[in-house]
Amino acid sequence: MSKQLAASGAKHFADHLISEIRDVGHPLCVGLDPHLDLIPSLFTQGSMHPSDELTAQAIESFLSAVLERIAGRVAIVKPQIAFFEQLGWRGLRVLSRLCARAQADGLTVLLDAKRGDIGSTAKAYAKAYLTADATMPVNALTLNPYLGLDSLAEFAAVAAGAGKGLFVLVKTSNPGSGDLQDQQVQAQPLYIQVARGLVAMHGALKGPVTGWSSLGVVCGATWPHQAALVREALPHALFLVPGYGAQGGSAADALAGFVPGPYGLEGGIVNTSRGVVFAANSAAASSTAAWEQAIDNALESSIDELGNAVHV
Amino acid sequence: MSKQLAASGAKHFADHLISEIRDVGHPLCVGLDPHLDLIPSLFTQGSMHPSDELTAQAIESFLSAVLERIAGRVAIVKPQIAFFEQLGWRGLRVLSRLCARAQADGLTVLLDAKRGDIGSTAKAYAKAYLTADATMPVNALTLNPYLGLDSLAEFAAVAAGAGKGLFVLVKTSNPGSGDLQDQQVQAQPLYIQVARGLVAMHGALKGPVTGWSSLGVVCGATWPHQAALVREALPHALFLVPGYGAQGGSAADALAGFVPGPYGLEGGIVNTSRGVVFAANSAAASSTAAWEQAIDNALESSIDELGNAVHV
Repeated sequence: MSKQLAASGAKHFADHLISEIRDVGHPLCVGLDPHLDLIPSLFTQGSMHPSDELTAQAIESFLSAVLERIAGRVAIVKPQIAFFEQLGWRGLRVLSRLCARAQADGLTVLLDAKRGDIGSTAKAYAKAYLTADATMPVNALTLNPYLGLDSLAEFAAVAAGAGKGLFVLVKTSNPGSGDLQDQQVQAQPLYIQVARGLVAMHGALKGPVTGWSSLGVVCGATWPHQAALVREALPHALFLVPGYGAQGGSAADALAGFVPGPYGLEGGIVNTSRGVVFAANSAAASSTAAWEQAIDNALESSIDELGNAVHV
Repeated sequence: MSKQLAASGAKHFADHLISEIRDVGHPLCVGLDPHLDLIPSLFTQGSMHPSDELTAQAIESFLSAVLERIAGRVAIVKPQIAFFEQLGWRGLRVLSRLCARAQADGLTVLLDAKRGDIGSTAKAYAKAYLTADATMPVNALTLNPYLGLDSLAEFAAVAAGAGKGLFVLVKTSNPGSGDLQDQQVQAQPLYIQVARGLVAMHGALKGPVTGWSSLGVVCGATWPHQAALVREALPHALFLVPGYGAQGGSAADALAGFVPGPYGLEGGIVNTSRGVVFAANSAAASSTAAWEQAIDNALESSIDELGNAVHV
């Protein structure tokens, strides 16, 4: 944490994350999506089956090794809960341990779960992940807004009290994202209506130090023009940007919603999932040293690309 | 299962569910939402804490007792996964056992998870819950459509192959559901656009025996006029109707999207969560017999009300 925040004793998701991003010098977020068929054989013992304890152990040792490579070099990681849920309860147990380990290593943990529900059900999700005494505590959670602002308000109230962050789906990176999100509503696309609906909530969660809000949005790197429009609607929202690299978004596309800050462009995080964790040549590595080298190379390459892009 | 389906060897979610509903004579679905602060003291040992093994055990014994009361009297149950997730991995282990138990008792299990994601992430959710070799197999799953039709297509492909069902959020029961769902798009509300987007997918999943589709929709009992419009758009979709009872929807409201069938109004299921599981007088019951009586009374009352309403 930067000296400024440590001294003030501030505990605010966005302030803390921005401080960490300034320290490492880039907004790269490493996605932790353990595809069973991509785990390097170095970490597996025979065939992988989702309901098998050995498979859960293989994923834990694989992602623990990844965390060891990236700790101190990136500010934030994003586990995708679906890849843990597919292992059943063993998967959630592994996820829980990995989140605790990442946080102990100084990494901010954003859980990509795209949850969304109402009333007491939203509160139950918040108790799982966000409250001060959460069962599986993370620093931030992704949310789906289809049920309406009342569904998001439950999470926002918890996030404000516990110093946690939220990223609401606004314009997702997939080709079909336009089916609902681009529908014209009052001469604006729906995703802009969603963004405008978040204005009050995102203002209320602004950080006292940086001015960035703990209520963020998801805007895919595949839609840079749209990201710029969302930025106009929500000047203080942190962006979670998926779709960089594998899905076709360039570094410049990924930063379309970022704005000039004291240390270069800032205002969000850019996720890469396969790019680092399943780096080129890493699956075939015949030794731990060779695997570590492949991960390190991929990490440096992504950091360099994004670091250069934010410091233009 | 009815003799007709058993003889044909058919394995199709909607055909099977409709057959079971015809057998029991009503469309009541019992929601399993284990609110920690509502579990009767008969089933608990001291205070309840989400990350405590005793709490998970209390919920398992409580809901096992509920399943014992309702097996054979209702066709379907709907566990809400958020209340299990708030217990962490122990919660998913309990959920997994309860789903297996319910299915062994002849109950159809609809998991209310409101998942929605793209590509390989959607496939991972499907492997958790829907595929033939799923880690935590259920009969059907609720989905959120905000990411677009490509996100739903992944689930639909799996459901078609494995004989599973899907219920896509269209018009939810909460007061804020209009924030997105009622926005006017091409002179129609968005929820009707969503329903129309599902036409081809729901037609492809029609059952050979009943004609009802395994691609269903969620339409709250609090919006009967809107449910009738969704029915016009999707003639073969089963409706999952939340909001009956506690949220204010009457039996007649809940059946607004149902149509005349061979044994009365049909075309979906009507959920009650607190109404049965946390029945009046059940929390204070001082003996197992008194608790069973309270649950039985509440169940019969809901069954009678809905049974009478469908057989007008």
